[in-house]
Amino acid sequence: MNEPKSLFLTDNSLGIATDLYQLTMAAGYFEQKMQDIATFELFVRQLPKNRSYLVTAGLEQALHYLAHITFSPETIQFLRQLPIFNRVSQKFFEYLRSFAFTGSVYAMPEGTIAFAEEPLLQVTAPIIETQIVETYLLSTINFQTSIATKASRVVYAAQGREVIDFGTRRAHGPQAGVLAARACFVGGCKGTSNVFAAHELGMPAVGTIAHSWVMAFENEQDAFCKFHEIFPDNTTLLIDTYDTLAGARHAATIGKKLKGVRIDSGNLSELSKEVRKILDTEGLHHVKIIASGDLNENRINDLLKTGAPIDSFGVGTEMVTSKDAPALGGVYKLVEQEHGGKVIPKMKFSKDKLTYPCKKQVYRIIDEAGNFAKDVIGLQGEELGGISLLIPVIKNGKICYNLPAIPEIQHTTSNNLAHLPEPFKRLTDAETYPVTKSQGLEAKRNEAEKILRNINIP
Amino acid sequence: MNEPKSLFLTDNSLGIATDLYQLTMAAGYFEQKMQDIATFELFVRQLPKNRSYLVTAGLEQALHYLAHITFSPETIQFLRQLPIFNRVSQKFFEYLRSFAFTGSVYAMPEGTIAFAEEPLLQVTAPIIETQIVETYLLSTINFQTSIATKASRVVYAAQGREVIDFGTRRAHGPQAGVLAARACFVGGCKGTSNVFAAHELGMPAVGTIAHSWVMAFENEQDAFCKFHEIFPDNTTLLIDTYDTLAGARHAATIGKKLKGVRIDSGNLSELSKEVRKILDTEGLHHVKIIASGDLNENRINDLLKTGAPIDSFGVGTEMVTSKDAPALGGVYKLVEQEHGGKVIPKMKFSKDKLTYPCKKQVYRIIDEAGNFAKDVIGLQGEELGGISLLIPVIKNGKICYNLPAIPEIQHTTSNNLAHLPEPFKRLTDAETYPVTKSQGLEAKRNEAEKILRNINIP
Repeated sequence: MNEPKSLFLTDNSLGIATDLYQLTMAAGYFEQKMQDIATFELFVRQLPKNRSYLVTAGLEQALHYLAHITFSPETIQFLRQLPIFNRVSQKFFEYLRSFAFTGSVYAMPEGTIAFAEEPLLQVTAPIIETQIVETYLLSTINFQTSIATKASRVVYAAQGREVIDFGTRRAHGPQAGVLAARACFVGGCKGTSNVFAAHELGMPAVGTIAHSWVMAFENEQDAFCKFHEIFPDNTTLLIDTYDTLAGARHAATIGKKLKGVRIDSGNLSELSKEVRKILDTEGLHHVKIIASGDLNENRINDLLKTGAPIDSFGVGTEMVTSKDAPALGGVYKLVEQEHGGKVIPKMKFSKDKLTYPCKKQVYRIIDEAGNFAKDVIGLQGEELGGISLLIPVIKNGKICYNLPAIPEIQHTTSNNLAHLPEPFKRLTDAETYPVTKSQGLEAKRNEAEKILRNINIP
Repeated sequence: MNEPKSLFLTDNSLGIATDLYQLTMAAGYFEQKMQDIATFELFVRQLPKNRSYLVTAGLEQALHYLAHITFSPETIQFLRQLPIFNRVSQKFFEYLRSFAFTGSVYAMPEGTIAFAEEPLLQVTAPIIETQIVETYLLSTINFQTSIATKASRVVYAAQGREVIDFGTRRAHGPQAGVLAARACFVGGCKGTSNVFAAHELGMPAVGTIAHSWVMAFENEQDAFCKFHEIFPDNTTLLIDTYDTLAGARHAATIGKKLKGVRIDSGNLSELSKEVRKILDTEGLHHVKIIASGDLNENRINDLLKTGAPIDSFGVGTEMVTSKDAPALGGVYKLVEQEHGGKVIPKMKFSKDKLTYPCKKQVYRIIDEAGNFAKDVIGLQGEELGGISLLIPVIKNGKICYNLPAIPEIQHTTSNNLAHLPEPFKRLTDAETYPVTKSQGLEAKRNEAEKILRNINIP
């Protein structure tokens, strides 16, 4: 009988947690004795549908990766026997044996509001290293940024009411559920149902009962009383298993100690109003109404417009998969290379996929009220005023950045969003935040493009 | 300086890789001395948009979980200090210390074609156990099934041409990339760019160069020759970095040893035709053209309709996120409970979320040509003919199922799809495959509903 495999990533497998072509290119650079220092930038070409900004997230896991990437002897053995490597010298595999990331990284701190074309991460290292780390960095930053952004929209729609992440069961695997819980918190959620994520990060773990509890007892009333016996100070009851209004009346019999009721189906606006009446009639004004069930920012917005007396939202599927825009198209592109003592700007001009060369910095210009006025993408070291959003996080392979705890990151997000004027964060028809490129950058691009076109397109 | 966290799941953390309410309910059942044997079924209420069937996947990882779930002393310590558990007795935490899954599981083998409402998994165990495992099972089966289904559509569109998974960078984190690579293979892909997944599962690892290789050398011609020096038998070149047709001409200079060229941008139909001409003019008829860049089943279908001479498709983002339907809404519902020697059917009737009670079996009726004619969802043990799709995979906590290797699972998928008549698998406007419920099941449901309504809705 075969043992089933978990397929869990571990620190030992980080070296091969990448696309094969990163390793064939690494072997190629090695064999060609190409030791140039390269700089790659990670950015999103266009914001996804329905998004007017990004909330950056995932940097901590990216730094974990860069600090721990290694090739175990067993994974090197695996690579060596792949037919594609049969002409690659033994020396390359010896090189992998002592592989570590020795480069330097600039990044936007997590919770920073960012826009299309702005580098979120900038990696400078010997070209083999920059190449190998591409895939993992992209998938880490793409995913958490996508979810933190979505969560921030859901939180915005809730207008100060609590939003809780309930999404693990619909996330892209159990591990994605953990990362999503983190990213939702970065985006402003007040807690998560995911116990492992809460444990690892110190976030509030939230939840009480499911339909199965109600169904497991002879009747609903009995199920409610039995739960209250064990959790007298945390009695939030799910009331829609059989009939929501009957459920509300059953819950109300708990009396003053009842903390909340959850409605997970039906017309949440009408039901919440009816349930509120039932509770209030019993003097249970303090009892909170929690709504859940396929919620997203638009549905929450609609519900609140109808005056639904909902105190808290449990949001799952739509938030943890960013369902209306489930993939963030971040890319990681070579922008500059030091070769023979010279710095050579690099760019590509594939159709619709043109990139800008050179190490960049994002300069955020603040208006007199302290709000974000516009961003300028310029060259690193240009004097353009404003706040420089990319800060050093790794220097010569060592983390040089004091990682904030998750509540601090959440605070960064809310603080950033508070300074992003309203028109740029409306749920629909948001205006486009002004991002321009500096003259210095445009000049470098024109120069590099001319040279590269002459060389490559006869 | 804080150490960055990977947030990696490990076997040690499986117990708390769940929603908090599973654990509060578990504590509640424990304190109420509720030791009933419960049966839960995992199924999808409605097929997602644009899907006419599901390809089941993820069972192996689900079995890994059930075989390894445990609560480490450290995680128990964490739970104990959560305020919500402050009235829960010490005995519950002692119980968790020796927790293991002791129940029995029926499942559809991976690669089985399934439809809405059909149980994919059926878990029977003491109710605490069935409850705790819900979240992880859902997220495992939901995700891989969603991706295997999407991949099967992409493979169908490619009409026999090779489809390769290139998606890790856009997956929902690096771990989701690994699981997606597996599920894509289940769905019919011929290989993956994900080296770790290839290593773990013995799938072909595929890939050669990225734009950065081309950009890293002084000019494209030089970059191509240098790659060919190191990989003379595996020279597939990416030709769109600067200009696709110039790139094709540069690649052609490699001569007979050139294996393939990849086009990643622009009008893939027109470009592939022009590139084919350039290659053929040089006598390079054997050189394969690989297309990539935001492909999905519909774009591949459109490309092939135009007669694009593409031999192989690299598909990423759209496949590994199942972008048009990024969440599969699988649920896990209590259907039956043994209490005091009696079997009690269980169901809920929340609006639009009604469930059917009792342990079920899916009977697939085969026509005289050997094709799938219809499915009947019936009671376990009913004599309804056809093939019984749910088979025992765990008995009393032990795996009793010979896990197939991944090529066998891929074969199961293709064999299943070969017997699913064409109208049910068309990319658009597919017909609805007939699935009915047995009279026995309907009778049980009517009976159970009547009883439960009388008890719960005064």
